[in-house]
Amino acid sequence: MAQYSSSVDEVFAALADGTRRSVVGALGRGPASVGDLARSTSMTLPSFMKHVHTLERCGLIHTSKSGRVRTCTLDRQRLGVIDGWLAEQRKVWEDRTDRLEQFVIANPEEAS
Amino acid sequence: MAQYSSSVDEVFAALADGTRRSVVGALGRGPASVGDLARSTSMTLPSFMKHVHTLERCGLIHTSKSGRVRTCTLDRQRLGVIDGWLAEQRKVWEDRTDRLEQFVIANPEEAS
Repeated sequence: MAQYSSSVDEVFAALADGTRRSVVGALGRGPASVGDLARSTSMTLPSFMKHVHTLERCGLIHTSKSGRVRTCTLDRQRLGVIDGWLAEQRKVWEDRTDRLEQFVIANPEEAS
Repeated sequence: MAQYSSSVDEVFAALADGTRRSVVGALGRGPASVGDLARSTSMTLPSFMKHVHTLERCGLIHTSKSGRVRTCTLDRQRLGVIDGWLAEQRKVWEDRTDRLEQFVIANPEEAS
């Protein structure tokens, strides 16, 4: 449970940065090299690499090297961590709405 | 655009912590006092208040004081910031899948 929680922390933290969200967005269109991704920012390569490492550490992207080119690939399933958490929240809200409806049905005089 | 981006940063950052996600989860069941919320953690009230302030600053919760009791209320719409970002990503993936399908239809010999 602690491991799950820490993993969710990492994914949310990784996405709390516009550059990293842009990388995730760009990789949604298909794998890309670190060089190409960096060129679309105004960053130096070493600064950009820190963002790549953060995304890789939390599993949102994978990278592989062929010759001098490092290619990044998005792991869409990892974004499911956030989808899953949001789905849990919606379940709580729906359960609450159901309970409120049942209360109103059972106590019409108090609701009027 | 910078303001939107910074606001998205703040919501993701606020949710990159298990205690704050628990507060959001608890408030999904209805408003609650800071005291009651703090008691469900093993934190001191001052430490817990820092989390409350973080959630309030990014707009995920609102608080109001009546006498000595501060009550927290969830702003579900604020979670829509994350839902919206995830929806944008899905749109990118679907567009990519559509393009791949169109390519295969247009070039059956290359896909076989």
